[in-house]
Amino acid sequence: MHVNDLDETRRTSAGPHGFLLAIDFGGTKIAMSTTTESGQRLHEAEIPTLAQQGAQTVMRRMFDAARALIATTAADAGGELLAAAAVTPGIVEPDGVRLAPNNPGWDRLALHDELRRGFAIQCVSIETDVKAAALAEARCGALAGVECGLYVNLGTGLAAAAVIGGKVLRGAHGAAGEIGYQLRGVPGETLFADGGAPLEDFVSGRAIGERASALLGRSVTTREAFAMRESVPQVNALLDDTLYRLRVHIVNLSLMLDPSRIVIGGGMARIPGIADDLRALLKRTVPYPPDVVIAAFGHGAALQGAIVAAGDAWRARRVPPGLAPLRAVAPAL
Amino acid sequence: MHVNDLDETRRTSAGPHGFLLAIDFGGTKIAMSTTTESGQRLHEAEIPTLAQQGAQTVMRRMFDAARALIATTAADAGGELLAAAAVTPGIVEPDGVRLAPNNPGWDRLALHDELRRGFAIQCVSIETDVKAAALAEARCGALAGVECGLYVNLGTGLAAAAVIGGKVLRGAHGAAGEIGYQLRGVPGETLFADGGAPLEDFVSGRAIGERASALLGRSVTTREAFAMRESVPQVNALLDDTLYRLRVHIVNLSLMLDPSRIVIGGGMARIPGIADDLRALLKRTVPYPPDVVIAAFGHGAALQGAIVAAGDAWRARRVPPGLAPLRAVAPAL
Repeated sequence: MHVNDLDETRRTSAGPHGFLLAIDFGGTKIAMSTTTESGQRLHEAEIPTLAQQGAQTVMRRMFDAARALIATTAADAGGELLAAAAVTPGIVEPDGVRLAPNNPGWDRLALHDELRRGFAIQCVSIETDVKAAALAEARCGALAGVECGLYVNLGTGLAAAAVIGGKVLRGAHGAAGEIGYQLRGVPGETLFADGGAPLEDFVSGRAIGERASALLGRSVTTREAFAMRESVPQVNALLDDTLYRLRVHIVNLSLMLDPSRIVIGGGMARIPGIADDLRALLKRTVPYPPDVVIAAFGHGAALQGAIVAAGDAWRARRVPPGLAPLRAVAPAL
Repeated sequence: MHVNDLDETRRTSAGPHGFLLAIDFGGTKIAMSTTTESGQRLHEAEIPTLAQQGAQTVMRRMFDAARALIATTAADAGGELLAAAAVTPGIVEPDGVRLAPNNPGWDRLALHDELRRGFAIQCVSIETDVKAAALAEARCGALAGVECGLYVNLGTGLAAAAVIGGKVLRGAHGAAGEIGYQLRGVPGETLFADGGAPLEDFVSGRAIGERASALLGRSVTTREAFAMRESVPQVNALLDDTLYRLRVHIVNLSLMLDPSRIVIGGGMARIPGIADDLRALLKRTVPYPPDVVIAAFGHGAALQGAIVAAGDAWRARRVPPGLAPLRAVAPAL
């Protein structure tokens, strides 16, 4: 584990009551940060996710690292842990996290309860990773001040989040923006019920590598596929077709939501010309074309979203002045 | 003009200050109703739209009819006109109504100003027809009490409206839900910039008749096309393909918005099995499939929406008790 003092020379004391904790359960690493009550970062830590170890092992390693981080923060900045926010792939329900197939055991993990018990605090907030990234963009990134915006995450997976009135649209089950399951409307798509994610299986960072590998008869990564774009016409055609399909779906989202701005995040946001190509199609297809910008936050977007969510949760749960802050009765760590 | 006393035997007096007016500029007729301050209908009138006469003529005829309706209401129920809400195809901007190609001159009609001046009132609200229908469903129809819902209007044209937290999503320019411009992502679509509405040109009530006519080499209406479904295999195939494409787009909206309920309105809501077929595809494609119901309001949905909007506008604009109600300084009618 790596615990990182953000700035040795300028120690920040925690808030009047204590400090907050943000956790991002990412695909390759679990990133954590403690912050002041107003979201200023205090200390950070990072461990590998190793999701294949299963939910209970992952959680035990996370708690070990988080407790060390909490101890460091308490010793350094004073106060105690007040609230935590976690960010994860999937849709968090009381008894498990749905739609997170890459995290074995997550579907039976009562994440909310585990975090409350494990940290002995009541004030715990959990958000889906892409919605957290959109929250970060909405609060302090490329969607700040935008009344109606759309965040699209083009990473290994594919998902989106609408930001309406500064809030991230959750939908009736917290599953708004799960556009990886959208249909292209062509014969032979593997639907959600059969284990597929039709659009994600075609246009995501993962899918492009897989489809290029199938085309070439040898394993290539998405990055390698893009690198051979100039030299291998059939790969070029595959990428053109794929990126056009992606633009079609973003145009269609735009027509439903009428955003004033679309923000592209995730690793594929670095594809040269991706914003220009989308902007050009929007101009020809949407009566009020939104502008298109690249996300302000890169890999750290979800953790930044967790930091914002922890602050929001703490402010929302805070008891009136004069009363003790909300705490569980469970013993302190 | 036809002025209709809703119920001769039970006269309702207007509210303490007066009454409201709702106007629906429909494709074939302009429907109007006066109501009490709380939305109870008092008197109604209806005139043909005859949009091809041009905006100024249509407005003059509307004002004539509306003034007669107002006079009847004032004589019968007492009080004066307090507020009006109008519903129209297109996106209302201060200097014209955009995206209403079937209403010549509408693009240069300052509808808001005209209504304020023409009725000598300040309190005027205008809404796009499909959003008004969704408002009616949200307030007192099939989306009442639904936190996150989707209204899809399958009529001569094609549009949708998201209802989030009881409010109809407007978007950054009031153009949310204009899904008639969505792309199918196939070669040769005529895009918005070239005068097309790609999805509406394929799946709307108008489009089905046109495409069936082109297929058969003779003019048939949409209704006739459906009637020959059993007997003419090529028409059957066209309808299957068309309705599947429509379902694909509704599934994709559902994945973005995560509604708990989808409401189908418009004339095509009467197609046998349309809700069942959609429900079946949603179950196989959407992690949290919404239920599907037919709209509570039929042809009168937009007028009902205007009635709700007039009440909302009046309550929002109302000055505190003890002060005079908001009125323009322009002379009374």
